[in-house]
Amino acid sequence: MRTLLTASILVALSTPGTSEGADFPVSVSTSAGPVLVEQVLTGLSIPWGMAFLPDGRLLVTERPGSLRLVDLGTGSSRTLAGVPSVAAVNQGGLLDVQVHPDFAGNGYVYLCHSVGKDRQMTTRLARYRLKGEALVDETVLFTGEPWLATSHHFGCRVHFDGKGHIFFTIGDRGERDLSQRLDADAGKVHRIREDGSIPADNPFLDKDNARPSIWSYGHRNPQGLAFRPGTQQLWATEHGPRGGDEVNEVLPGLNYGWPVVTYGREYHGPKIGEGTEKEGIEPPRLQWTPSIGPSGLIFYSGDAFPAWKGQMFAGGMALTHLNRLELAADGSVVERERLFDELGWRVRDVEQGPEGHLYLLVDNGWLLRVKPAE
Amino acid sequence: MRTLLTASILVALSTPGTSEGADFPVSVSTSAGPVLVEQVLTGLSIPWGMAFLPDGRLLVTERPGSLRLVDLGTGSSRTLAGVPSVAAVNQGGLLDVQVHPDFAGNGYVYLCHSVGKDRQMTTRLARYRLKGEALVDETVLFTGEPWLATSHHFGCRVHFDGKGHIFFTIGDRGERDLSQRLDADAGKVHRIREDGSIPADNPFLDKDNARPSIWSYGHRNPQGLAFRPGTQQLWATEHGPRGGDEVNEVLPGLNYGWPVVTYGREYHGPKIGEGTEKEGIEPPRLQWTPSIGPSGLIFYSGDAFPAWKGQMFAGGMALTHLNRLELAADGSVVERERLFDELGWRVRDVEQGPEGHLYLLVDNGWLLRVKPAE
Repeated sequence: MRTLLTASILVALSTPGTSEGADFPVSVSTSAGPVLVEQVLTGLSIPWGMAFLPDGRLLVTERPGSLRLVDLGTGSSRTLAGVPSVAAVNQGGLLDVQVHPDFAGNGYVYLCHSVGKDRQMTTRLARYRLKGEALVDETVLFTGEPWLATSHHFGCRVHFDGKGHIFFTIGDRGERDLSQRLDADAGKVHRIREDGSIPADNPFLDKDNARPSIWSYGHRNPQGLAFRPGTQQLWATEHGPRGGDEVNEVLPGLNYGWPVVTYGREYHGPKIGEGTEKEGIEPPRLQWTPSIGPSGLIFYSGDAFPAWKGQMFAGGMALTHLNRLELAADGSVVERERLFDELGWRVRDVEQGPEGHLYLLVDNGWLLRVKPAE
Repeated sequence: MRTLLTASILVALSTPGTSEGADFPVSVSTSAGPVLVEQVLTGLSIPWGMAFLPDGRLLVTERPGSLRLVDLGTGSSRTLAGVPSVAAVNQGGLLDVQVHPDFAGNGYVYLCHSVGKDRQMTTRLARYRLKGEALVDETVLFTGEPWLATSHHFGCRVHFDGKGHIFFTIGDRGERDLSQRLDADAGKVHRIREDGSIPADNPFLDKDNARPSIWSYGHRNPQGLAFRPGTQQLWATEHGPRGGDEVNEVLPGLNYGWPVVTYGREYHGPKIGEGTEKEGIEPPRLQWTPSIGPSGLIFYSGDAFPAWKGQMFAGGMALTHLNRLELAADGSVVERERLFDELGWRVRDVEQGPEGHLYLLVDNGWLLRVKPAE
C-alpha cells in the first residue's frame, strides 16, 4: 500500500475551529493543487447531513431538529415546515437527509432521525414531499426494532442506488451483541425499496426470525455510506470504539464482525472480542487506529478537481480533517491523505456541489466550500 | 414579609429531570391544592419561549434555531418554515416568541434571537406573518448595538402592552459597564412601537447619544418580562452573577443598578460595585440569593387555580422550580412559594393556556402542563 500525506497549511487560522468568522477563505496545499476553503454559512446547530436539490439549493439538517434550505448564492438559510418531532437527546435528533434521484418528478425528500417513545428511542426513516417551503405527505418507511433506552449509535446515513432501493445504516445502539443478531435492526446496513417495502432478493428473507431489511451485519456505528461510481460497490465507514474505525465494501449477507472481530479496544483499555480476523467475517478494506471518527462519505465525480475523480472522501470528526482515499479497481486502498488536518474542523458530512466543489459541514456550525484556487 | 413555602411531593420521580418519559402525571401538593403535572411533549431541543395562538395551538422556540407549532390535543409538533439564520452559539439562538394581541387580524408573530456577523453577535427582534406553516414577510424591527464578540447575556424576552408598544430585554452581553451607558443597547429594557419605530414619549429621547429605545437601564440579564393585570406595572426578572437575581418593577428612565449596585458577587467570590443600595438606583422588589436563575415570567389570570389569580410565576433554572410570588397592591412581595422544587426541572418558560392551566418548558426538552387534580 502506497501512502501519501500532504496537507501543509499556507495560511493558518488564528483560532481554528472555535470562533465565528475566522479568516476565510483559507488557502491549503493539497494533492490536487492549491485549494481555497470558503465559509458559506455560520451559526448552524450541529449540522449533520446535507443534500442538493436539482436547482442547486442545499438542504441541511440540524441535529436538534430543524431542516434548513440554503441559497448558496445569497448565503441565506430558512427553516422548512413539517419536520416531525425528533428525539434530540445525546447523539439523537434529525440526522441525514437525502433527495430522491427523481426529485424533479416526485419531490421526494427522505429524513433519517431518532424518535422517542416513553423512555426508549430508535432510528426512523421517513419520506416526504417538498412543497414550497414545507415537507408534506409524511410516510414512515422504517422504524428500527427493538426500541432501547440508550441514546447513541443511531447510524442513520441514507443512500439510493438509483434502481429503486434505499440503503441506510443503524448503529448498535450501545447494545453491541445486537450487531450479530439477525432478529434486531441495530448494527446493520439495511436495504428497502423506495416505498418502504422489502425487496424480494434481500439476503435473509429465508432465515427464521431475521429482520427482512438486513443487507449486512456486524456493524458498530456506520455513519458514512456511498456507491462507487461505475461499479456496483457499496461502501460504508463506521466508528470503532477506541481505534478500529473501518472502511468496508458492503456485500449482501456478510458479517463485518462487530463485536467479535475488531481492531478497536474498550475505551478503558481491554481487548474486545476474539481478535482482528476470523473465518466467515469480512475484514475491513482499511481500519483507522487511532480512530478518526468517520462521518459522511462520498465518491467524487466532478470536474473541478480532476486529480480526485473517482476517489473517496470521508469526514473526520475525532481527528478533525477530511480523509481522502484512492481505491484500486479491486477496492484496495492505494493512496490516502488527510486534508485540512491542522484546522480543527470536525467534519460531519461532505457532499459534492453541482459545480464540482466539495462542501463540508463542520460541527461548530459551519458550511464550508472547497474549490480550486484560481 | 410573610412567607410560605409549601411544595411537598406526593409522588416522586425515579430519575427526575433526566430521562425521557418519567412517571407522569406527577401529583404535587401546592398552596392551590393538589395539582397534576402532565408531560405533553418530550424531545424538544432546549425549548426557550412559547406563545399560544388564539386557536389554542402553541408556538415553541427551540434555541438551536427552530420554531415548532404544537397541537396540544394530539401532542404532535412540526417545524415552521421561514425561521431565519440565528447564531446558535453558547447562550445564543432562537429565543423568545410572542403573538401579536390582534393576531387574528394581522397574523403577526415576533421572534427575538441572536444573530451573528463576522466574529460578533447581537440581539435582534423581527416581525413575521404566519401564513399556513410558514413565517413570511420578515421585518427586522430592532438590532442591538454594539455587536460584540461575546456569546452570552442576550436577554430577549418580549412583551406587548396592548397599546401599540413592544417591550423587550437585552442583557449586558458580558460587558457589564454597558449596562450603565445610554449609548449602548446592552443591559436595558427597551420599548418600541409595534412597527419598530420609536415612541415619542420614550424617556431618553432628549439625551445626547442615548439609544432612543431605552426604557430602563442598569440591568444584567433580564429574561422574564410581564405586565401585571389591572395595573400599568411592568415587571422583570433578571439573572444576577453569584446571587443577586432580581425582581424589578420596571419604570421608565430609571436605573436598576448593575454593576454599581447588586446583591450578587463575582463567581470567584469578591464583591461587585459599591454595595446593595445607592441614591438614584432602584432597589429590587425582591432579590434571590442564592440565585434561582429566573427565566420566563407571567401573571396568572385564569380560573383553573383561583388561589393563584393575579400572582406572579417565574421559571427557575439553577434552583429547578417554578417560583410563585404574591404581590400586594403596592408591589411588595407578601408570599412566596417554590413549586416542584424536588423534581429537578430547569424551568425556562411558563405560560398560561387557554383553559387556565400552566405550561412549563423544561430545559431537558419537555413541555409540561399543570392542572388541578380532579
